[in-house]
Amino acid sequence: MMPVSADYDRIIIGIDPGTNVMGYGILGIKGKAPSVIALGVIKLSRFEDHYLRLHRIFERVLGLVEQYLPDEMAIEAPFFGKNVQSMLKLGRAQGVAMAAALHRDIPIAEYAPLKIKMAITGNGGASKEQVAEMLRRILNIPRERMPEFLDATDALAAALCHYYETSKPIAPRSCSSWKEFIARHPEKVK
Amino acid sequence: MMPVSADYDRIIIGIDPGTNVMGYGILGIKGKAPSVIALGVIKLSRFEDHYLRLHRIFERVLGLVEQYLPDEMAIEAPFFGKNVQSMLKLGRAQGVAMAAALHRDIPIAEYAPLKIKMAITGNGGASKEQVAEMLRRILNIPRERMPEFLDATDALAAALCHYYETSKPIAPRSCSSWKEFIARHPEKVK
Repeated sequence: MMPVSADYDRIIIGIDPGTNVMGYGILGIKGKAPSVIALGVIKLSRFEDHYLRLHRIFERVLGLVEQYLPDEMAIEAPFFGKNVQSMLKLGRAQGVAMAAALHRDIPIAEYAPLKIKMAITGNGGASKEQVAEMLRRILNIPRERMPEFLDATDALAAALCHYYETSKPIAPRSCSSWKEFIARHPEKVK
Repeated sequence: MMPVSADYDRIIIGIDPGTNVMGYGILGIKGKAPSVIALGVIKLSRFEDHYLRLHRIFERVLGLVEQYLPDEMAIEAPFFGKNVQSMLKLGRAQGVAMAAALHRDIPIAEYAPLKIKMAITGNGGASKEQVAEMLRRILNIPRERMPEFLDATDALAAALCHYYETSKPIAPRSCSSWKEFIARHPEKVK
């Protein structure tokens, strides 16, 4: 069986890390068309033990990475939280998910929730439901395939946000120095 | 070459996670005698990129785990910090170090700095230098082998604290119910 990665030019895994539910969304890009490859959640609340949860996150994310061979990982990363205790826990959950990507040399990009909402809906204050509905339309996801948990669509939103951010047309820019010109156009130096 | 693990009854890896320097100490126990197998630091400050640091932590800790085959990991874990931002970063550093252990099914124990200082020196307010000096005496470490960075001795202190905590004699305890008695003495039930 051919790996799914052969069908796409680029694959981005989006992760919405949490200590109770971790969402993931695998976005495939063919030409300029993004589409959904997989969408789901890793449920952690049945594990009482904190380390079992971290272990589960690591193994599942590593499994997704090995199954879908993504080129990049995009993470929804809130940089500020209620208290130091919850941020330490969130940091650990993010850390083990990141370790799974780093272990396979996959670069990571992080986006704040507001930035993701803005990129998907044009409104930084959009609800999770609005983000999910917009994703459904943009990516033509059949209603019956929409996930029960919004953590999954949040993760997919991070992946799509990363795609938008990295596929923006780059405006032609004049060089500010000869050094820069030479660095950017080595073929013009004889 | 025989693995070093064959020389010991039990091996504990101690980790002092940090985002600039991460300390580690490998403690070997033979009979009731703990001794130092390895002691050092993983320097991270030369990596400007946050993910490179996390990657480095994961790969180095995984390398230590595969080299020394520890039975357990002990981590010095401050549960409260200055601000949410620094706790998120610390949580990530802890998370990737933990992922390396969890990936190899090694159980993790955490100890607060005060608890570790108390276990090693009898004084919860001891300085890092005092902890290092006490370790040097308890474990008969030659002065010239003492590490430059106190992060290494802090990590070793976490490992020794874990050894003390898990090798305390358990006081004989009467059973509070028949159910408990049967559970603890299945051989007495016919």
